[in-house]
Amino acid sequence: MGFDETVTRRLSTEECWDLLRADEFGRLAFRMSDEVHLVPINYAVDGDTLLFLTGEGNKLLGVTMHPEVVFEIDAYDDDKAHSVILRGLARRLEEDEEHRAENVPLRPWVSTPKYNVVEITPTQISGFAFVLERPWLHART
Amino acid sequence: MGFDETVTRRLSTEECWDLLRADEFGRLAFRMSDEVHLVPINYAVDGDTLLFLTGEGNKLLGVTMHPEVVFEIDAYDDDKAHSVILRGLARRLEEDEEHRAENVPLRPWVSTPKYNVVEITPTQISGFAFVLERPWLHART
Repeated sequence: MGFDETVTRRLSTEECWDLLRADEFGRLAFRMSDEVHLVPINYAVDGDTLLFLTGEGNKLLGVTMHPEVVFEIDAYDDDKAHSVILRGLARRLEEDEEHRAENVPLRPWVSTPKYNVVEITPTQISGFAFVLERPWLHART
Repeated sequence: MGFDETVTRRLSTEECWDLLRADEFGRLAFRMSDEVHLVPINYAVDGDTLLFLTGEGNKLLGVTMHPEVVFEIDAYDDDKAHSVILRGLARRLEEDEEHRAENVPLRPWVSTPKYNVVEITPTQISGFAFVLERPWLHART
């Protein structure tokens, strides 16, 4: 990956899942026609999949037409950062599966009706932890 | 967009730029062959463009072959969230333009050699502010 090994550490799959379970907000990239789309979503881990809710808009149309999606979470403070990137296949759950969304802390952040539950089944998970070197932060003090 | 207007507010272009200038970390989605890629990047605003640094890897190859990219920043706390999504054209700066990266607070977070400066010229900027309703946060207290 071209990273400096002394400041970048590849996370284990288990560490990636721990971070995914501890978070609730990420970003989903998907294709629609020839365009790439990128949207923030809130999500929950359900077993070895992710679930999110969506209305009838672009997200649902996009993942229905091109199920190959990429999902990302990250966080950083002054000294360190991490990022987890999950490549997977998205699928709208059937009505008789939608109850899975009721067993996880997954609710729309805004009170918009969002009726569709989408599941992402990972095909590849990778994560990195970084030690940050941002000298200008210290220069300010 | 299907949002509930009472809890979601579309940000003005100026508000989006204010948020972009106040942040330094976002995510870039781009195409490479038929795949969508999504990576965290640190960036800086330079005039009406964004700049970021990258090595010779996928990011550079991807944006060279498919300059249409999408970039996103967001933030949230218990009560509110915002997200800015910028669609644009990426271009690697020529050597005689790279000095532009020296005039903005843009440095690689990790001490990896990153020699290429990429500029994103926005073609579309949109942003939303959300009032969050997450009853389970309060239920915990």
